[in-house]
Order: sequence, then C-alpha cells, then structure tokens
Amino acid sequence: MTRFKLTLEYDGGPFCGWQRQDNGPSVQQALEEAVERFAQQRVLVHGAGRTDAGVHALGQVAHFDLDKDVDGDTVRDALNFYLKPRPIAVLAAAVAPAEFHARFSAKGRAYIYRIVNRRPPLALDLGRAWHVLVPVLDAAAMHDAAQRLLGHHDFTSFRSSECQADSAMKTLDAISVKRHGDIVSVAVSARSFLHRQVRIMTGTLKLVGEGKWTADDVTAALEAKDRAKAGPTAPPDGLYLTRVEY
Amino acid sequence: MTRFKLTLEYDGGPFCGWQRQDNGPSVQQALEEAVERFAQQRVLVHGAGRTDAGVHALGQVAHFDLDKDVDGDTVRDALNFYLKPRPIAVLAAAVAPAEFHARFSAKGRAYIYRIVNRRPPLALDLGRAWHVLVPVLDAAAMHDAAQRLLGHHDFTSFRSSECQADSAMKTLDAISVKRHGDIVSVAVSARSFLHRQVRIMTGTLKLVGEGKWTADDVTAALEAKDRAKAGPTAPPDGLYLTRVEY
Repeated sequence: MTRFKLTLEYDGGPFCGWQRQDNGPSVQQALEEAVERFAQQRVLVHGAGRTDAGVHALGQVAHFDLDKDVDGDTVRDALNFYLKPRPIAVLAAAVAPAEFHARFSAKGRAYIYRIVNRRPPLALDLGRAWHVLVPVLDAAAMHDAAQRLLGHHDFTSFRSSECQADSAMKTLDAISVKRHGDIVSVAVSARSFLHRQVRIMTGTLKLVGEGKWTADDVTAALEAKDRAKAGPTAPPDGLYLTRVEY
Repeated sequence: MTRFKLTLEYDGGPFCGWQRQDNGPSVQQALEEAVERFAQQRVLVHGAGRTDAGVHALGQVAHFDLDKDVDGDTVRDALNFYLKPRPIAVLAAAVAPAEFHARFSAKGRAYIYRIVNRRPPLALDLGRAWHVLVPVLDAAAMHDAAQRLLGHHDFTSFRSSECQADSAMKTLDAISVKRHGDIVSVAVSARSFLHRQVRIMTGTLKLVGEGKWTADDVTAALEAKDRAKAGPTAPPDGLYLTRVEY
C-alpha cells in the first residue's frame, strides 16, 4: 500500500464543496472517481480543509492510498487526465509516509479572501470575489481591527451554527488586510479554522471598513462568544484556500 | 444628441467577439440591446478594438449617441442593470464631445497576453490564459527577441490572412515579456494593431521561449513579410485589451 499526497487547485464554483454530498458534485467525489478510473480501486480521498460550496483552492492538500505501486508524477498526470473537463488541477502528487494524514498532520492553513470594492458589477471576477459596491472600504481600519482577533481565543462568535468542532478555542497566527486598487484582500493563517470562521471574520471586518463598527466592536463581538454578535458571513466566492503546511 | 464614452470590462469567453455576428452573442450586441432597453432607442455602439471571440477586456472603450439628455453615472448604472447576467461591466460612462470616436480618436492601445507555463492543467485560469505545458519558457530570451519587433515596420508576417487593413505598416511602441512564478506575460502597446497581431507575435515569441527560435529568426520572420514565416497564432483565452488612450 502506498499513500499519496496531492496538492490541488480548483474553482469551487461548480461544486457543492469539498465533501461528498447528495445535492451535487463535490471535489472529493471527482477525485475519488478519477482515482478509480486510473487505478481500478475505490478509495477515500481525505482533504486538509473541507471547503464549502463555491470556495476555491490554490493549494488544498489531500491524501489517499493505492495498492498499486506507481510514482507520484504518473498519479498527477493520470488524475489530471481523468479529472477533465472539471476545473480541478492536481499541481503535485508525491508518495507520502504511511502516517501522513492531510487533515490531522496539518500544522498550518492559509486563506485569502478577495473583495472587489467598486460600484460596477464584476465581469472577469464574477464568482471569484465578493463584490462590495459602496462605500470605499477603509482597509487600514480593517487591518487594525483585525489584529484584535490575533492569538488564542474562544471563537464561538465566529463560527457557523453548524460547526461540528468540539471546541471553539483556536489560535489565529496572522491576519492582514490590504488594498491594491479596487481589491481588498484579507490574508489569514492558523493551525486550523472553525466552520466559516474566515468568512465570518471577513463579514465582520467589512463592517469596520464601512465605518459602521470600530475595533472595539470587534473585541466585544469576540468576547461575547455568541454568533449573533459578530457580523454576517461573507459569500463563498471570495475565499481561497492558499496553502497547507505540515 | 449626446455622445457617451464607455469604459468596459468583459470576459470574452461566452461571446463570439466584440462585433455583431450571426453565429453567436457579441459584446456589441449585448451593449446595443442594453441601451435600447434603457433608452428605448436603437443605437450603434462603436468599440475601440474589435476583440475576437474569447478575448477579454479590462479597459475596452466604446461610444454611442442618445437623443435623451442624461448623465454618465445614470447611463453606467442603467447599462449595468440591463447587461445582467452577462459578464460585461460598464466601469465608467461619461458625456463625450460630438467629435469623439472610440475607434478613430484612439491614440494608443495596450494589451496583455497571459501564459500559464506549467504541466498541470488550468483550474482557476481556465479560459483566462494560454496553457503552455512544457518546456519552461525562457522569458528573458522572449523579451530580448521581442525588441526586434519594436518600431515602425511592415507587419504582414504578423497579421491574419483575414485582416482587412489597407496597410500592414504599424508602429509598435512597447513590448515586454516578464515571468512571475508560473505566469509569463507579454505586454504590448501601439497606436493600433493588425488583426491577430498580438496573438501571432505571442505565438512567435513562444517559439523563442522554447528555444526553437532565436531573436534573428524573429527578425527574419518580420522581414519576410509573409504570414507563413511567423509562428502560430496564440489562442484567444490569454489576451486582454487593457487600455485605450485618447
């Protein structure tokens, strides 16, 4: 038995998310079917992050086991062949130690959230960013307020009511907000995140960018440990899983 | 009568190109229909550049005339409303002098051609770049060879056989090739270009990047004044009309 580690890029738009579901095509299912067509073996593909419907990946990581003895480059090329025409690309495939687990071995995850902040609608960025029309978001204020979320906290206010994690205690290692022209991007990294944590943090920081909330309001929302006290969940379109570290 | 100047962004993927055609939806037709729905007036929308099927725009310019007296911001918002859900965005609309002509008044046009140079297929860049698998393109050699095309020349070798321009004499003002990670981009500017000139120049420079051609071969192709002596036409997916200057 050989364990393979995959590094993946995908457009989340056409998928119901990473995880297999009854209500539509998932990234996991597409990969499992590609493996089966290549190796004539049914496998379970484990992902580092269970991205929601519409969420994209530039560097998702996954693993699976094969009975077949085959090298990583062959796996990469074969999966890419069988994945066509779905917008999923295997960037790399490599043999991994038997104890490697895409989800449980991960030491860090990084996401970027992209906002296009302009009045005209999106054309090339449709489905690839959150379109925030007005007002001009104050990215510097968003960045300052974001620092209130740094460190080890109970992130109950910033997790979906459907979140299945036992504990809401998480450590946010880095968060920054930058503007380049019309694009405001929120970059975050942590060992792991709660369900919809990045999207709820972004939706909350948008309130700061609009001048509706202060940094103190963000602190108050965090301390309230109540989902209703944080801002709305930003849409999935702007979220990218960029990197998983081991 | 009021003349309006539009600045446009669009995803060229779903369109048969800028120009009205019988074989599919065009950007021009979509705009003319949006104007008619907004102003109950049939108009002709003139574009600065007649982008081909699949070619994108970040800053296409167009103009049209309305009998109605209305301000630019209203035109922008109304057209964006009626253009939905097509991936065309009116970035700006402004009243222009009666003698302004999107095509004939243009003093400069700039394009960027994006190549993604990697073995794995494209996921997020599908339809938005030319996928060149192998080898690793030598962007520095492409840049050096590209300089052979600078200046005033007969670009017969670099125009489509369907090109309707009376003369193939054009002046290329700037051309540069840069690599950022997997992305090799070719940036060009000139007063105007021949039909498919940017795509044929890019297809030719790719031969240099692959090591199949030298800079002297590019000079020889230019001097031959024969389309068959230049490289192949790069696909439309990677081409973006970025700016039109007046």
